[in-house]
Amino acid sequence: MKFCIVGWCGHTHYIVEGLKKLPDFEVSGVASGETERSGQYILDILDRCELKFPVRPKLFDSWTAMLDEVKPDVISADGPYHLHGMECLEAAKRGIHVFSEKPITLDLKELSSIEQACAETGAVIVSMVGIRYDAAFWTAHRLVREGVIGKIKVIHTQKSYKLGTRPEFYKKRELYGGTIPWVGSHAIDWILWFTGSEFESVTAFHDSNDNFGNGTMEIAGECLFRLKNGVIATSSIEFLRPAGAPTHGDDRIRCAGSKGVLEVMEGKVHLITADSDRYIEPEEPPQSLFEDFIGGLRGTNPLPATTADTIALTRACLLARESADKHTTEYFK
Amino acid sequence: MKFCIVGWCGHTHYIVEGLKKLPDFEVSGVASGETERSGQYILDILDRCELKFPVRPKLFDSWTAMLDEVKPDVISADGPYHLHGMECLEAAKRGIHVFSEKPITLDLKELSSIEQACAETGAVIVSMVGIRYDAAFWTAHRLVREGVIGKIKVIHTQKSYKLGTRPEFYKKRELYGGTIPWVGSHAIDWILWFTGSEFESVTAFHDSNDNFGNGTMEIAGECLFRLKNGVIATSSIEFLRPAGAPTHGDDRIRCAGSKGVLEVMEGKVHLITADSDRYIEPEEPPQSLFEDFIGGLRGTNPLPATTADTIALTRACLLARESADKHTTEYFK
Repeated sequence: MKFCIVGWCGHTHYIVEGLKKLPDFEVSGVASGETERSGQYILDILDRCELKFPVRPKLFDSWTAMLDEVKPDVISADGPYHLHGMECLEAAKRGIHVFSEKPITLDLKELSSIEQACAETGAVIVSMVGIRYDAAFWTAHRLVREGVIGKIKVIHTQKSYKLGTRPEFYKKRELYGGTIPWVGSHAIDWILWFTGSEFESVTAFHDSNDNFGNGTMEIAGECLFRLKNGVIATSSIEFLRPAGAPTHGDDRIRCAGSKGVLEVMEGKVHLITADSDRYIEPEEPPQSLFEDFIGGLRGTNPLPATTADTIALTRACLLARESADKHTTEYFK
Repeated sequence: MKFCIVGWCGHTHYIVEGLKKLPDFEVSGVASGETERSGQYILDILDRCELKFPVRPKLFDSWTAMLDEVKPDVISADGPYHLHGMECLEAAKRGIHVFSEKPITLDLKELSSIEQACAETGAVIVSMVGIRYDAAFWTAHRLVREGVIGKIKVIHTQKSYKLGTRPEFYKKRELYGGTIPWVGSHAIDWILWFTGSEFESVTAFHDSNDNFGNGTMEIAGECLFRLKNGVIATSSIEFLRPAGAPTHGDDRIRCAGSKGVLEVMEGKVHLITADSDRYIEPEEPPQSLFEDFIGGLRGTNPLPATTADTIALTRACLLARESADKHTTEYFK
């Protein structure tokens, strides 16, 4: 399998652990996803990661030229946020599988084009849903899917980040995309992942007031989802974690079901059922996200998420943003 | 001040601690709020509480006859849930102040009638928002109102109760009123209390499937509120707390603001700001809810909540239920 890297603006570091365990997996080329800088910065990152390649990855000026010349089987797409969509679309049209930063696009029409291209060429797109591979979330998901809390009735998820100093492009909606898609994609992904259901509707609000001079960036948002299987879910998404907090993020999920309540908070998995109230030792997943992605393409393990899952998550993020922009309830077809 | 008790189906025990500290406060009469049983059960409760009265409270067959004969200054209204409204309305029309179980009515039209009657006669109605007087919530509220977390941006509240075996009337909407008004009234009250704002809109869902044979009773509900001051809030309300949990209820509030995050969970108050991450020792409020209510009427302290607060909370509960029934967003005038 030939692999190329397009941009490294977000979470492409997820590939590093995988590449170390996939010695037969070659990085054939790298290119910046943007016009402002060369992809040299990506080679520099790879050097710092001390990855060993049989042949040094080739640096391209143009990522589309790289796709056409190298004809990779797989790329990672992690250009500036507003270019994920174009990167995914160009790859999908060529039948190239994509490990994309999430959300895979900031535009609903582009999402439909990507969906159609994948259907036509068989390209697989999986987004960087890295927190699924956090031991606490991984373990909680396994327990819920095994039925320890019975039938899920309600879910609350939370993403709370320290704001810090954000790059300049966060100040512009057209470059950043919005806080519900960017930060919230994880919180929304967990709902899909834990329930295994589709969304029916979303109502959301977000707020860019009091955002510490960050332009149009929303400092916070809240979403209310109804799922097709009847589960009701809320997500709280914000950059309000104070500087004095012990960690950067405060990621949480609480699932209440017919037989118990399971909660992830501060990296711990708390399970209460009719006859017990205990913490479950989090287990690391057997493989990393990128290994599972590649294994899924090779057929040696299930994909971390299907292309349909990836499309559904992206659509949910963008419809939630639309709901919050327009003060409407948005329905999923 | 003459005080009468109408029914003791819910939280009228809040009066007991107050009565012990108000020795000059006489209970002039008691009556059942219902036709099915006499008010003798209330006298029995008072006896068990070992309250000492200069004159034994008089038992009435009819609570309206009691209002007309005794002409009390104040009553407690805690008949069966579907009769709070009538009790409040009849008292308000007579200019009698009311310490009412919440929600004060199950019907929006009746709520408007109560509001109008209070405006005409000056009757004050405060509902039994007892959890405001829980030390952790009391302390958290004080801190937030003092500004320790800056401007509130988002709030999440939670009421999670053990289901246990509920009385028969929980199975019927017309008698029970619904889980969002009954259980959720607290979670909704905290939002109003912490923000000091009015609601702008609510979108909610609730679900009576998988309710362990409890008729139309909703096992769970989730609400999304937007407040007029811009705060966004969600409430999770359910009867899914497992039997193995250490306490009956799992009451929570998390407020994230421009300068910090404050959270009440498991009776603890957790505050994170730019320069600290610590637990605050909860302080008991100086007086109980009922003492504050009576002191408020006497002018010796502020009321625990104004009549306008009580009306606003009840309207919010009923509009949230309506939103959940109809799958609409409801707006507050």
